[in-house]
Order: sequence, then C-alpha cells, then structure tokens
Amino acid sequence: MKTAILGTSGYTGQVLLRLLLAHPGVTQIIPVSSSKKGEAITAFDAGISEKELEKLKATQGTCVDIQEAYKQKFDVVFAALPHLKSAELCAPFLGKAVVIDLSADFRIKDSGLFEKAYGARPPREDLLDQAVYGLCEWYHEEIKKTDLIANPGCYTTASLLPLLPLVKEGLAAGPLMVNAISGISGAGKKSKEYLLYCERSENLWAYSPGKTHRHSFEIQAELAKVDPKADLFFTPHLAPLMRGIATTITVQLAEELSQEQVVAVYENYYGSCPFIGLRKTGIPQTKEVWGSNRCDIGFYVQGTMLYLFSVLDNLIKGASGQAVQNMNIRFGMEETAGLPVHSVL
Amino acid sequence: MKTAILGTSGYTGQVLLRLLLAHPGVTQIIPVSSSKKGEAITAFDAGISEKELEKLKATQGTCVDIQEAYKQKFDVVFAALPHLKSAELCAPFLGKAVVIDLSADFRIKDSGLFEKAYGARPPREDLLDQAVYGLCEWYHEEIKKTDLIANPGCYTTASLLPLLPLVKEGLAAGPLMVNAISGISGAGKKSKEYLLYCERSENLWAYSPGKTHRHSFEIQAELAKVDPKADLFFTPHLAPLMRGIATTITVQLAEELSQEQVVAVYENYYGSCPFIGLRKTGIPQTKEVWGSNRCDIGFYVQGTMLYLFSVLDNLIKGASGQAVQNMNIRFGMEETAGLPVHSVL
Amino acid sequence: MKTAILGTSGYTGQVLLRLLLAHPGVTQIIPVSSSKKGEAITAFDAGISEKELEKLKATQGTCVDIQEAYKQKFDVVFAALPHLKSAELCAPFLGKAVVIDLSADFRIKDSGLFEKAYGARPPREDLLDQAVYGLCEWYHEEIKKTDLIANPGCYTTASLLPLLPLVKEGLAAGPLMVNAISGISGAGKKSKEYLLYCERSENLWAYSPGKTHRHSFEIQAELAKVDPKADLFFTPHLAPLMRGIATTITVQLAEELSQEQVVAVYENYYGSCPFIGLRKTGIPQTKEVWGSNRCDIGFYVQGTMLYLFSVLDNLIKGASGQAVQNMNIRFGMEETAGLPVHSVL
Amino acid sequence: MKTAILGTSGYTGQVLLRLLLAHPGVTQIIPVSSSKKGEAITAFDAGISEKELEKLKATQGTCVDIQEAYKQKFDVVFAALPHLKSAELCAPFLGKAVVIDLSADFRIKDSGLFEKAYGARPPREDLLDQAVYGLCEWYHEEIKKTDLIANPGCYTTASLLPLLPLVKEGLAAGPLMVNAISGISGAGKKSKEYLLYCERSENLWAYSPGKTHRHSFEIQAELAKVDPKADLFFTPHLAPLMRGIATTITVQLAEELSQEQVVAVYENYYGSCPFIGLRKTGIPQTKEVWGSNRCDIGFYVQGTMLYLFSVLDNLIKGASGQAVQNMNIRFGMEETAGLPVHSVL
Repeated sequence: MKTAILGTSGYTGQVLLRLLLAHPGVTQIIPVSSSKKGEAITAFDAGISEKELEKLKATQGTCVDIQEAYKQKFDVVFAALPHLKSAELCAPFLGKAVVIDLSADFRIKDSGLFEKAYGARPPREDLLDQAVYGLCEWYHEEIKKTDLIANPGCYTTASLLPLLPLVKEGLAAGPLMVNAISGISGAGKKSKEYLLYCERSENLWAYSPGKTHRHSFEIQAELAKVDPKADLFFTPHLAPLMRGIATTITVQLAEELSQEQVVAVYENYYGSCPFIGLRKTGIPQTKEVWGSNRCDIGFYVQGTMLYLFSVLDNLIKGASGQAVQNMNIRFGMEETAGLPVHSVL
Repeated sequence: MKTAILGTSGYTGQVLLRLLLAHPGVTQIIPVSSSKKGEAITAFDAGISEKELEKLKATQGTCVDIQEAYKQKFDVVFAALPHLKSAELCAPFLGKAVVIDLSADFRIKDSGLFEKAYGARPPREDLLDQAVYGLCEWYHEEIKKTDLIANPGCYTTASLLPLLPLVKEGLAAGPLMVNAISGISGAGKKSKEYLLYCERSENLWAYSPGKTHRHSFEIQAELAKVDPKADLFFTPHLAPLMRGIATTITVQLAEELSQEQVVAVYENYYGSCPFIGLRKTGIPQTKEVWGSNRCDIGFYVQGTMLYLFSVLDNLIKGASGQAVQNMNIRFGMEETAGLPVHSVL
Repeated sequence: MKTAILGTSGYTGQVLLRLLLAHPGVTQIIPVSSSKKGEAITAFDAGISEKELEKLKATQGTCVDIQEAYKQKFDVVFAALPHLKSAELCAPFLGKAVVIDLSADFRIKDSGLFEKAYGARPPREDLLDQAVYGLCEWYHEEIKKTDLIANPGCYTTASLLPLLPLVKEGLAAGPLMVNAISGISGAGKKSKEYLLYCERSENLWAYSPGKTHRHSFEIQAELAKVDPKADLFFTPHLAPLMRGIATTITVQLAEELSQEQVVAVYENYYGSCPFIGLRKTGIPQTKEVWGSNRCDIGFYVQGTMLYLFSVLDNLIKGASGQAVQNMNIRFGMEETAGLPVHSVL
Repeated sequence: MKTAILGTSGYTGQVLLRLLLAHPGVTQIIPVSSSKKGEAITAFDAGISEKELEKLKATQGTCVDIQEAYKQKFDVVFAALPHLKSAELCAPFLGKAVVIDLSADFRIKDSGLFEKAYGARPPREDLLDQAVYGLCEWYHEEIKKTDLIANPGCYTTASLLPLLPLVKEGLAAGPLMVNAISGISGAGKKSKEYLLYCERSENLWAYSPGKTHRHSFEIQAELAKVDPKADLFFTPHLAPLMRGIATTITVQLAEELSQEQVVAVYENYYGSCPFIGLRKTGIPQTKEVWGSNRCDIGFYVQGTMLYLFSVLDNLIKGASGQAVQNMNIRFGMEETAGLPVHSVL
C-alpha cells in the first residue's frame, strides 16, 4: 500500500507517520507539507530515526509539496490539514485514491449546522454526499465501500461511543449531559500564548460550554441520525496533560435498569470490537488507554440516573489511530493491524 | 494571638504554618505533631527558613506532642488531623480556646448522614451542637459567636459557594449536577501507590460518582438547610496538578433569566465579599486563584440551562486559608488579614 | 513610595506587581505597558482581584503608556522590558527616580563582552558607569548609594551566590563547572513553539553549552572582578516545571578541606543574609524555595572535589524578588519587607 | 519462544510485558508475581486489554508464583526483581533457560565494589563468572554466547554509551564529569512519600553526588575494563517527568579535535547500531527518544573541552527495551524485532 500524509508536521501528522511506519501493510509513505517542503523529516521531528526511512525512501525522507503529490498514485491519502482548507486540497485525489480526511470538512452533512460550528459553509458541499463518517464501530459496513472517509473529532469519538447505544435503544429519558476533559494536544501545535507550558501547567479550565463548542454540533448531528430528539449539553475542559480525554456523562434512564443490564446493552454493541474496553465495574482512567487505539467505557447506575465514563487517547483513537483503523477496515486488513491495543504507560 | 497547629506535617498543616507566619495578628505558633515530636520543623519542611522562627521560638521551632499543648493556653487551636480522630483530640481545648477543626468531625450535624459518609458515628456527637459550619460567606454572624468552627471541605466550598444563592432564591428547577476536578493535594500527603507521580501524571480519573463521595453528603446537608428538596449529583475527578479545584455545575432554571440577571443575584450575595470574584463574562481558570484565598465564579446561560463555574485553591480557600479567614472573622480582625487576594502564578 | 512597572504583562512584570501589591512600604503603583495601554490589568491578568486595586487607583487599574509615565514623578521605576530596548526607555527616568532594570542592558560594563552575548553594543554605553550590579548580598553598600541598579539574571544569581565566596577566597584550583537546570518561565512569556506545553512536558534538554549562553558572559564578568583567572564552563538545561533553578557546581579545591570548613567559609559571607539558606548537610530542592526570595546552598566534599548546589525561584530571587530586595536596600527599609522567606509549596 | 517475566507488576515488568506482547518472535508469556499470584493482570494493569491475551492464555492472563514457574521450561526468563533478591530467584532457571536479569545482582564482578554500592556481598558470587554485562552495543558477541545476561542500569547505559568510545580511544585527559537528570519512574513503583505527585511536581533535586550513587560504581567498573585510570564523577538529579534520562558530560580532550573529528570517532563505533542516534549538530532532547529503544548522542567542542550529551528512555533502552534487545541478539533474531526505533511523542 502506498500512502500520503498531507500535513506531516502537526501532532496528528506526526502520530500518523509513526503508525504508518510500524504498519505491516504499508510499504510507502509520501510526506506532504507546504511549510516543510524540501526539508528532511528528521530535521523537524527528531523522534524519527534516520535508520528507519525505508518506507520514506521515495522522497529520501524529505517533504514534498502537494502539487508533487497530485502527480502520483496512492492507495490512501490521509489529510491532517486545517478545517476549511482540507476539503479543497483533498478533492483532486478523489477517484484516484481513498481519502481519509482528519479535518471537519466532510463530517457534517447539514451545511447550515456546519456553518454554525465553523463560521463558513462546508468548503466542498458538492462532495458531502460521498463522505462516510468514519466512526469505525458504527459505520463499519459503510466505511468498507466508500472512497471518502470523514474521520471523527476527538471529543466526538469520546462522546458518541458511550452515547450511541443508549440513544439507539431509547434508554435516555432526559438531556444528555456530557462533561469532557482533554489534554493539551487536542488544541494542536499552535504557537498561541494560552498553550504555553507556563499557562497550562497547574491549570484547569472549562470553555465553550453548552451548545457552543464545534464538536458539540458534530456530536449532535450524529445523535440526530439515531434519534432526532436527542438533546446534548456538552462542556469541554482543558487539563494539564499532553494526551487523553475523559468524559463523564449523566443521563436519566427511561426505565430502571441495573448496572449489569446496562453493561449487557453495551456488550451487545461492542462485545466484538477490538478497541472498545467495557468495564463491568470501576471507572477507567486515561492513562490506561494512553498511546493505544482503545476507548474504554465505565458505568455507574444510581436509581434511574446513569453515569457513563469514557477515556481515549485524543491523538490515537481520537484522530490518527482511528484514521488507520478506517484504512484497515476499508482495505479488508486485520482491523488491529499496526494499532496498539495496550497502553504505553 | 497565640495559636497552635495540631498536625503540622501534612499539606494543610504546612500551609497553615505559612499563613500564620505571615499573619500580622499572630504572635506565637505552637507546632503540634505526634509523629514529629521533638523534631525541628526545618528538618521535615525545608521550605521554612531557620531565619524566620521568631513566632516559633517558644518551642525553638520543634514540634511538641499534644499532651504538652493541653497544658498551655491558646487563643486559637487549628486542628489539621485525620477524620474520626480529630474531634476527640480537639475536645480538651474547648472552653479554653477557639477551636477551628479542618477535619469532617463536626461538619455534619445529622449523625446518620455522617455515618453514611464516614462509616462511623461522629466521634463526639455530644459537641455537635456547639459547632458552627465555617463557610465564611454564609455563616459570618454565627462564626463571630462560636468557639468551635467546623471548617468546610475543599470540594464542599467549591460547590456550595456557587450553589447556595441559586438554591436559596428558589431558582433551580431540577437536579443540581456538579462535576468537580481536583488537583492531587486534595488527597493529602499519603504514601499510597495511586498518588505517586508516575501514576497521576498524564492521567484523568473520575471517581466516587453520584451520591457516594464523602463530600457529597456534606454538600447535601448544607443545601438541605436552605432547601430540603435540593437534589445533588456530585462527581469528582482527579487531574495532574498539585492544587486547584474547578467545578462545572449545570441546572435547569425555574424561569428564564438572562446572564446579567443571574450575575445580579450573585452580586447581591457576594458583592462585598473580599474573596469572591464574580465574572460577568468568561469562565475562570484555577491558575487565576492558585495560592490565593479566592473563589471565583463564572456563569453561562443557554435557554433555561444555567452553567456555573467555580475555581479555588483547595489548600487555601478549600482548607487552611478559610481556617484563617474564620479566625479573622471570629476575632474581629480585618477579614483579609494575612490572606492573599491575588494568585501566585 | 510611588512606583512604576514598565512591562506589566510579562512573567517578571506580573510577579513584580504581586510583590508590590503586598509590600508595606509601597503606596502607589503605575502599571506601564505599550501593548496593553488602556487595558484593565484584570482583563489580561485575572489573578489580580478587582477588590485590591487601592494601590492602582491612580490609573483605575489600567495600563498607561510610557509617555504618560515620563510626565510623572516616582520614587522607583522597575523596568521589566526586553534586552536592548530597556536602557533607552529607562534613561528619561534617571535623575528623577531610582531605576531598577531587570534587563541585561546595564549588567555588563565591558561593551565588547556585552556584544558577544547580545549581538549588539550596550544600547546606552554612556550610562554604564552609573549602574551598580544588583546582586544584593555582594553589592549591598554600593546599592545603597546608586540610582541605577542592574538587576542580575536568574542563572547568574543561582551561579554567582555559590561561586563567589569560593573564588574570592582563592579556594578554586581548576575550572568552575556549572550545570544549571531551569523551569520554563525563565524563557519568558513568548508564543514560541518550543515553549508549548506539549513540547516541554516529559522533556529534558541541554542547550547553549560551554561559554555560549548569554548568562555565561554575565557570570564570567562578575567572577573576573574578584579573580581575573576564574574559568567558567556553564551549561543550562530546561526541565518541565514552571519555576525553579538548580545548579550543580563541581570544582577542584586548592587544598583539602572538610565539608565543615567549606560551610564555615560560606557562613562568614552569608551568615547574616536573610535570604541565603546554608545547608550544613543535605542537598536543597527547588520546591523548598519555590515562591520565596531565598537562595539555598548545599555542599558536598569528596577528596579535593567540591560540589556546590544552589536552588532559587527564577522569578523571585532570580528576578522580581531581588528587584524588590534592591529597592528595600536602596531606601533603607527592612531588607525582607514584602518578600517571602518561606516557600509556597 | 516461550518467556517468563518475574516481577510483572513493577514499571519495568509492565513495560516488558507490553514489549513482549508486541514482539513477533514471542509466542508465550508466563507472568510471575509473588504479590499478585492468582490475580488477573488486567485487574492491576488496566492498560492491558482482555482482548489481546493470546500470548498469556497458558495462565489465562493471571499471575503464577515462582514455584509454578520453576516447573516449566522457558526459552527466556526475564527477571524484573529487586536487587539482592533477584539472583537467588533466578538461579534455578540457569541451565534450562537464558536468564536476563534486570537487577544489579550480576552486573559487578568485583564483590568488594558491589558491596560498597549495595551494602552486601553479591547474593550469588558463585554465578558471577557466567554473567555477561548486557550493554548491547559493546558486548554483542559475548551476549550471543551466554545464558546469563546482566542487563545494565538506566543511568549506566546513558553514561557508558557516550563515555566508552572516548575512553577506549584514550581521548580523555581529565576526570569524566557526568551530570545526569532522570524522570521519576527510574525510582520504581514504590509508595514512598518523596515519590508522590505533590512532592516531585515543580521540583528539581540533585542527590547522591560524586562517587556515592549505586550506578556510579557500576559505571566505574565498566570503564575500568577499558581504562583502569578512568576517573568518574557522577551526579544524578530528579526532574518532574515520568520517563527520560539526559546526561551532560564534560571532559578535557587529550588533544585538540574538531567536532567533526569527534563525531567520526563515534561513527566508527556506532555507525551501524540501529538504536544509537549520533547528532552531527545540535543537542538531543529526551522527548525525541521517549518510548523508543534509542540512545541519541550529541557533541560540542570548545577548545579542548568536550561536551557529550546523551538521552534515552529509562524504562526502554535503560531497562526493558535493552533486555529485549539482548534476547534478540542472543537468539539471532533481527536486533530491532519488537522494539520501537522512533519516539512515541
């Protein structure tokens, strides 16, 4: 398999590169970057060793610009580019390669909703119909057949995986209250003051509460496919760690259920999914999935109040790992190929 | 003013010592510790300089045991001792000194509720009647007249300060959903595996959800004084920082209110309180109150859904700072005496 | 005392503001900032409470530009401005106020040496003669008489305080090998990629080794005043913490000395200094001086090899605290006025 | 290949388990633990997924005690046990399996030197002759032929890899001054107060300076094999990160050499080593090797003063990764099999 990474120097691009270097089914990687064109990857990402550049030898380990990439043929093109810019740059690859876009540009089919979230119409509304939302555990069959995959956001994955079975089964009787806490890498590698070490260390911050965060619209759009009445309240928080998202979800159950009954519902959906860890008891911690492609889910029932807890690594299952999982599914490879199931820490 | 600190070597004891060393109204401090009896404070707390031991000269900067303290006369005795042990050790000082107990032993008047939280009856039920709950902004007048102050817990202070005006005014129409995130020092200086640097770094964890955490009972008890129907759901989280608590509270409003109207309600309660910072706009971050005795509160209204956000330093306003504030109030000193209003960072 | 802070929004400016707000001898503070002119301090530094703006009421808590400041009279002007820009902006205050400059512009009298360190001649060579190097423990008498104080750098203070007694006494027989490890705030509040949380967390880095770091020239210049043959090798490191510098210094002794004898030499110099903590045994940790104006020094002798260890808070004793200490000395106030002797943590 | 891990619940045991789970040549892993006997690994290490227990199916993912392990046959036994206890527990496997011991028990052949470092004679002096020191890049040929490998310590690996070429070539003219900074996991998973999050965060600490640290004796012993006159001064430091060691080494060169000439010396030794990254320019950072089995080395020459800089992940190249590398070499597998060459971050 020959692959390209558009946007090799951001955090998701760097993680993608690591995953593809270790992937048994990938033989070639073309690193694409406008800002780093002509530069050796090892010059700006010293974590990559010059001794393992076999898969990168076509460009001798240096980045090429996208015009150069347009001339080539790929099996898969991964786009780790900014929202509102990605779709236009991906479009020329369509028809020639499977495109897996990590930006939001193809995620929301309702253009009005997209505009509320991103302040502009989807850049390529004409292509929205072709895109499949790449939440692997929910659109497995659709992913197999599409050539344009809209890879979900990190908060979105961490919220939808615990919410969807509940909503689908009609078990939620009230608003879906989601509190999510994220590590700093979720904001990307931007040289902004609020992302400095000294600003984020020893600091906790809630931001974009209620129905205002961009991912809130994306989650809402996905929930609506299953139940148009699903009513989401989503509040994200930043905490001082590099990676990890933890959600705490509270929702009134439509009927009284034991914790065992709730877990059974989820086992029905996720029992055979290699990257979903259901905890019959106890609450998962983000470190337990750090560096893995897993999303672990915990449960707590008190009367008719249900608590759901999910954890994932925002750069792996929340971004680049899920992108590789999408590739695996699309090409009929082992779903876990090249993807860590256990945590690093 | 002559003071004693029972339990000088824990985090709250160490912070108390620092605050009292800098307090203009305190002339003498007797450090009491059973485990450190006869040891110089500077031997186990090298942050204290041998050059500032003036207030500690009575014991030449060494810790004495509590039997020695019982023989002396104090204006104030601060107890920074474990729950279930503190009350018994404090009792002999009653009648001779104002006792400010930082443990939970005198906080909950309902012995059955206390037992649910702590697994045992309050150790000195006979003294519960004398105790005033030391939430400074709410029991200012009662604090002035009591000789036994039950200093509130950290999660409790962070939750009650934003909740009480709302509940008192009858503005809450549904359950009070509190998500709180805390730094690690809230768990105290215990040599437990789960508190090791390598276990907590890069880790987020929700624990004791719903109505199970000890502080949940304490918050519920205080809310019930104002409105017996108040229905609390409290979920704490641990995040990798030393200090700081942030709460995110969601509640349905009984009537539609603008954000300005909500802020006005809080200004009515807290406008003249030196340590409450009301944010007309924006959401406070824990770093903004780190090292101060402040609790800052933010607001967000969306339809009839109200979001409240509070931040405080769990060791200052959530423990030792509030204890000193209680002393200031009780003895008619300036309420801010010896207490930082601005953050350290 | 009426004071001004030039550059109120950087880390050293923010810490200065906190120290002056708490200083008993300071009645007025004029915050000066070109980038924040007309903005309320509380708008960009939410750690400052609107309830403690008494000392800032002349400007109603908002920043003014330097032209406005030039029109006023001050007792002290603190400059927390960038190197190469500070001297020119400070000059108009000379003759009307005591100027304490936290930049490097007046620190190195040898213009050629300054140029090697900063790539340009000292911006106001004409004023160099007036400046006194504000290392409080060494230039106490000179500081009392000057109106222009060049406040030392953070690495410099951490290196010179342990080195100078040794060099002055002629006890060093070989090169002075200084390894220094610093927290991130030493680099200032700059929105650079390498200072992002995700770049510095879980990262250790040595940089500018040998005789190449700017502070190396400053240390060398000060050592040369005492012994022109002193031969410094200085290597700084960045570690993932906000504040703190630790140095590990190795040097061959000219003669065999016991650890007690070495400590005695230092007690002779620093025994009466309120902010120097000499450790007869054990090695100090940065947390033990975090938030204080102290520099603690430890010792270890093995044969004729002497190890010196110093720790300080780079923003306090390494910058703003020492600036306030300089003010205290210059104006005959208590040297410790408004300055913390014990650590915050 | 059938393997056992003695001591599965410590940090090095946990990392070993992860590496072996991902290793293409390992088919079976028997987890051994006295404290966790009969417990499921997933019960105490939730980072391991129940869905990947194929290699652990012999014990159904639960730990067995060592008596059970003695009854079985293994290709390789990894011992991640405490010093002074490991040798005795490993001995029964000798002759039946290749033993790779991560403790210090077989590292130092000179029993007197071992006693100075560990306060007791080597527990199995009788077996010392059989042991090969497992510094892969230096004892490649010996490792191939031995059945008892003494896996080096983390500080030791980080110091010896940069020091040995220099010493071997006779290029060092003076003492070898090593300053090393380590992350907290180097101290192991011990519930000690000084390892708590709140004690180590925002803290830098030099400890065991000069010739007193245990690893100092181990480094000295290895250097002496190459040059008996090599004179080491080693000072370790703790910094607030989980993983990573950085060394800064200074040494006078015997003759003037350019940086290029020095690098050429190292290329001669390490040019073909897959896990050594030589930097012609610039200084490596620990994050660049975090999670990999690499040791990267940087250089700086100023006159005749040489600076060497090395970085590695103390749990991978400094412990479990090198242990796997030793297995790969011993069994003639690809040296990089199952070992990450690029960083995780």
